[in-house]
Amino acid sequence: MREFVVVGHEAPTTAEFSLDDLPGAGRLDVLCRCVTAAFGLSHDFRDEVRVRLVLGDEYVVRFEGAELRHLRPDERSAGSLIRGALEARDGAIGAMEATASPGVHVGTGDFESAVAAAAEMGTLVELHADGDPIVDLEPLDDVAFVLSDHRNFTDAEAAVLERAADECRSLGPEPIHADDAVTVAHNYLDTDGFEAY
Amino acid sequence: MREFVVVGHEAPTTAEFSLDDLPGAGRLDVLCRCVTAAFGLSHDFRDEVRVRLVLGDEYVVRFEGAELRHLRPDERSAGSLIRGALEARDGAIGAMEATASPGVHVGTGDFESAVAAAAEMGTLVELHADGDPIVDLEPLDDVAFVLSDHRNFTDAEAAVLERAADECRSLGPEPIHADDAVTVAHNYLDTDGFEAY
Repeated sequence: MREFVVVGHEAPTTAEFSLDDLPGAGRLDVLCRCVTAAFGLSHDFRDEVRVRLVLGDEYVVRFEGAELRHLRPDERSAGSLIRGALEARDGAIGAMEATASPGVHVGTGDFESAVAAAAEMGTLVELHADGDPIVDLEPLDDVAFVLSDHRNFTDAEAAVLERAADECRSLGPEPIHADDAVTVAHNYLDTDGFEAY
Repeated sequence: MREFVVVGHEAPTTAEFSLDDLPGAGRLDVLCRCVTAAFGLSHDFRDEVRVRLVLGDEYVVRFEGAELRHLRPDERSAGSLIRGALEARDGAIGAMEATASPGVHVGTGDFESAVAAAAEMGTLVELHADGDPIVDLEPLDDVAFVLSDHRNFTDAEAAVLERAADECRSLGPEPIHADDAVTVAHNYLDTDGFEAY
């Protein structure tokens, strides 16, 4: 299983935003592209993938590849699923999530709880420009990558990762967008560490 | 210099499309994401990049990284620049392009002319799922990648590439989206062939 935890620092926590202006909705366009990059293959989808989007440190939207339906490759499509999750968010009670659409679940939660949940699944890898090159890391079967949107991790988030992350890795010398980092992380795993396939 | 030639098989050749429905505009969303992946870095842009989009085998929109302005990371932003190019297309006369906005030029042309222009710049690499692994190819300084949108190359395009391409390479065992291929190709070059950086 591969998992991606993406924190949206200014992301909306209500469904009151327009799909015609995703950048204006707290740069939700970044998170939308991360979802697409996590699940999308050419005319296919990746089943063995989970994404957790942390919205405003209040809600966590969980996408499950094995259950997911209705995701197309354009930004608006992912935006529509996120809006659906925020419309359903009041159905989440305590630790119980609400299901907004097939494979899209929403619950109350913050960065720390999302990271803790991801760490239960496998090796937790922080993706950061200052990390060691990922190419030196043996590919892992069960891995959760944690990355930030267009902003850097806050000091509080960095402290959470300091405690929880098994690795801090970078994907290259250039500071790439979060969704491109998802794409490269997949490629690193697909090719057994940029080697055989 | 890095160049990307992307062919849009159903892409519009007039500006009569809505930015609210880029998938409905002949899957222009795919080309938009390719443009973003080609130029975008986190809070920065890649200067030494050129993109040629082949639209309906009638027009070629050329983006020059060193001149480019007004490109933001969301799909609509690239879509707006492409629409601007198509609004300016009648200003292109014969072999002379029209400039729609800084770094965005449009001219009459087809897949074959775009590939020929790209081949003048450096090594021409077809990106295709059936190619040999790119990891075995020494990184190149001047390289033009040719790739297709959501459809495969037509027989005629494949014949052009058979003659013109120096290499045919794949980026991994999974069939990834065109824009993800742009991202991975950059990473391959950024990291000196997925090695040192």
